[in-house]
Amino acid sequence: MLREYDFQKLDLVEDIEMCLENAKLELSKKQMLLKEKNIPVVVLFEGWGASGIGTSLGKVIQNMDPRFYNVVKMDRISEDDARKPFLYRHFYEIPENGKVTFYDHGWMNEVTSQYLHHDLSAKAYHRRIQSIMNFERTLVDNGYLVIKFFFHISKKEQAKRMKKLQKDDNTAWRVSKEDMWQNKHYDQYIDLYEEYIERTNTSYAPWYIIDATNKKIAQMQVLEILTGYIQHRITYGKSDAPLIENIFELNAPIRVNEVDLSPTISEEKYRKELKKCRKKLSQLHNILYRKKIPVVIAYEGWDAAGKGGNIKRVTSGLDPRGFTVYPIAAPDKGELNRHYLWRFYKRLPKDGHIAIFDRTWYGRVMVERLEGLCSENDWQRAYNEMNEFEKELSDWGAIVIKFWVQIDKDTQLERFTERQNTPEKQWKITDEDWRNREKWDLYETAINEMIAKTNTKFAPWYILESVDKRYARIKAMKILIEEIEKRIK
Amino acid sequence: MLREYDFQKLDLVEDIEMCLENAKLELSKKQMLLKEKNIPVVVLFEGWGASGIGTSLGKVIQNMDPRFYNVVKMDRISEDDARKPFLYRHFYEIPENGKVTFYDHGWMNEVTSQYLHHDLSAKAYHRRIQSIMNFERTLVDNGYLVIKFFFHISKKEQAKRMKKLQKDDNTAWRVSKEDMWQNKHYDQYIDLYEEYIERTNTSYAPWYIIDATNKKIAQMQVLEILTGYIQHRITYGKSDAPLIENIFELNAPIRVNEVDLSPTISEEKYRKELKKCRKKLSQLHNILYRKKIPVVIAYEGWDAAGKGGNIKRVTSGLDPRGFTVYPIAAPDKGELNRHYLWRFYKRLPKDGHIAIFDRTWYGRVMVERLEGLCSENDWQRAYNEMNEFEKELSDWGAIVIKFWVQIDKDTQLERFTERQNTPEKQWKITDEDWRNREKWDLYETAINEMIAKTNTKFAPWYILESVDKRYARIKAMKILIEEIEKRIK
Repeated sequence: MLREYDFQKLDLVEDIEMCLENAKLELSKKQMLLKEKNIPVVVLFEGWGASGIGTSLGKVIQNMDPRFYNVVKMDRISEDDARKPFLYRHFYEIPENGKVTFYDHGWMNEVTSQYLHHDLSAKAYHRRIQSIMNFERTLVDNGYLVIKFFFHISKKEQAKRMKKLQKDDNTAWRVSKEDMWQNKHYDQYIDLYEEYIERTNTSYAPWYIIDATNKKIAQMQVLEILTGYIQHRITYGKSDAPLIENIFELNAPIRVNEVDLSPTISEEKYRKELKKCRKKLSQLHNILYRKKIPVVIAYEGWDAAGKGGNIKRVTSGLDPRGFTVYPIAAPDKGELNRHYLWRFYKRLPKDGHIAIFDRTWYGRVMVERLEGLCSENDWQRAYNEMNEFEKELSDWGAIVIKFWVQIDKDTQLERFTERQNTPEKQWKITDEDWRNREKWDLYETAINEMIAKTNTKFAPWYILESVDKRYARIKAMKILIEEIEKRIK
Repeated sequence: MLREYDFQKLDLVEDIEMCLENAKLELSKKQMLLKEKNIPVVVLFEGWGASGIGTSLGKVIQNMDPRFYNVVKMDRISEDDARKPFLYRHFYEIPENGKVTFYDHGWMNEVTSQYLHHDLSAKAYHRRIQSIMNFERTLVDNGYLVIKFFFHISKKEQAKRMKKLQKDDNTAWRVSKEDMWQNKHYDQYIDLYEEYIERTNTSYAPWYIIDATNKKIAQMQVLEILTGYIQHRITYGKSDAPLIENIFELNAPIRVNEVDLSPTISEEKYRKELKKCRKKLSQLHNILYRKKIPVVIAYEGWDAAGKGGNIKRVTSGLDPRGFTVYPIAAPDKGELNRHYLWRFYKRLPKDGHIAIFDRTWYGRVMVERLEGLCSENDWQRAYNEMNEFEKELSDWGAIVIKFWVQIDKDTQLERFTERQNTPEKQWKITDEDWRNREKWDLYETAINEMIAKTNTKFAPWYILESVDKRYARIKAMKILIEEIEKRIK
């Protein structure tokens, strides 16, 4: 497909300039429709060095409204991004609804070139491709259009262009060492590119090979494809995404309503254990930092179950420069207008650091499900999407721990009443808490389903029996200690 | 003050452990009051290497609720941050209302150590101190508490501690080269620190020198000061900040209602000029990129004045990988809960890049003033705050250009009516636009005052006469070209 590509000596149609102007206008009209219909679009430009991606991109968007698109150059990974999961920097740049992100090089370039430079093992490379396919699929499933272009030129053409660029002092800097290396190893690259494109050429995120020998014709092709693709979505709308069966190995389901909530701990033992655990965690945190192991801790649980106090005890043993606690409330506008996992992606820790989420992405299958804040297809699909998300974290090397803080309905009532009657605690209780309480049984069903479907080996759920809050705190700290010790052995 | 510091051989009170526990509890209670009253707090920890800041910080906050504070380690500047203005990374980390950011080292450490390592000239160093004082003042004026601690130990004590750390393999890595260098040049440092602290010891953001010879006593001191400082604010509230006279040289004021709006350009000349300007801008953008000169362009103007179309033409000549357009609407929750300039700070470009703001920080003295979204003291103070903000950009090396896009009231009516009657344009017009129009005269007064007070030499306003939109576009492009050419000469 790339190897036997028939580079056509296409003749310029006589009025190519006018055709291009018209096509640009047409695209800008489509952009306004995207804005109107709130459709977000991801456009990926990949291709050979010196294939003219930058120039062509500049021309293609010339008539678009720059308030509603963004172009991101992704060929260099910053120090900070290198300390995040592979998908982080790509996910970070996804557009809001109604806007377009053009990626000038992206995930294909990253993984293929790392693989060819032996910065990725074969196994890691194949895992990356799986991540990429999941990434593209979840974008599309959540309403994004994803369009991928590959700018193709022959080895000879590439060499010719680089020579020309190098001759001129004003353009010589644009030819990188990597470009030179690529031309030298063109045949190796083309094999890999071909295989990559075949594997990732999906019905939801198709590839378009662009003959980039002639820049104007390449631009024309891109414009026509973009315009057509957008129009297709506008005409036919988005259909429900098929559900994907879970392929990850699961631990046994847990029914939270059947958990024995009687365990307690004496005041004296609590003090002793707390001190011991703090000290241990403090030592382990130091090791995590030096080994650059990231940790992601997710807290979910009933209102008034004691999440806040639990988190406080866990963090009291940690170096405060090495962790952040994120209380998750309703998403803000920029978050609501993007893929629902975006706001969690952007809060991921650097390696060696700990992120603690007080409420999490699981809101999708609890409050959003029960309050009708997303469609049924959305929350049903979410189990797998969240497993895939956590798999990314795990593959990156993170320790992922999920706590469900459990109490019974009577205990909740007691605590609500106490909050209501204690002036300093009144801010902690809202009408919403009372409304949620009325839906206790519905939540219970949703929680049991959630745990059953997302209790993976790499990101297991742990129940914290929190009728005795102190018991739950010590348990959380011990689990954390154990999980870290397992990893650093 | 540092040099003759009398390091006291303070005896530990017998029950120091219990005192500390109580003080920590006290601070955690104050934290809940901060949360309740929505007060944001910035706490800066500076001091000698090995003075125990990290450890003490960890202890001090042990009882605080980690959902409402954040600890940031600022001793290393990332590659990306190094390409932003000096204050960027510090401003970026300011807390939301009701939360606390603890800076583990900060702006003092940054500028003093750069100066002593000759990475900053004397002139630049003094300019930085001015930036810092403006930064701290504007935080306080906008409702923040700012508290600064300096952890002080003697040269001998520092040497002793480092030796001890180095002896143990588990802690040896914590002694950096910089620490060693510092101890060797302790006397130089102490002179500079003393001078720095004197200059920046203001009534709104005072310094506290902490005797860090004994860690527990240091923690006790920090806890008591923090608790007292917070209580003081809670008891007395925030008073209106005094207004600061503008000290920047201003260009002549412009009264927008007196601008001659008759200039036009013929269709033919427009086409020709547009093409020429595009080409020129494209070349200049390339040079900006290579010289790493940042550009910040601010667009303000009446509704329907043609800002969007103007921006579109300006950007059509630029490399899309090198600019971003930010449409500024109402702030989201995280933005509303921080200093009003925060959302602009976080959108500043990297050096060599261009940021275009479609509406800007000047909203403070227009819509926020007229709609009562901030207090009178707030918007009156804002003129100087915005001048200082733009001075930061200018000192950083940025080209700062502010466009006011001007039309008359009749032209606006015409365009509103056209938008209303054209289905594809209806999304552009809202009830709010009509409401704003009713306040035309009030806006006019505010705009004239705004331009008069912020038309600085380093960030001047340019009027774009936009009854003929095409005229305004060419004018904007030519101004941009001229400003860039001036700079790159």
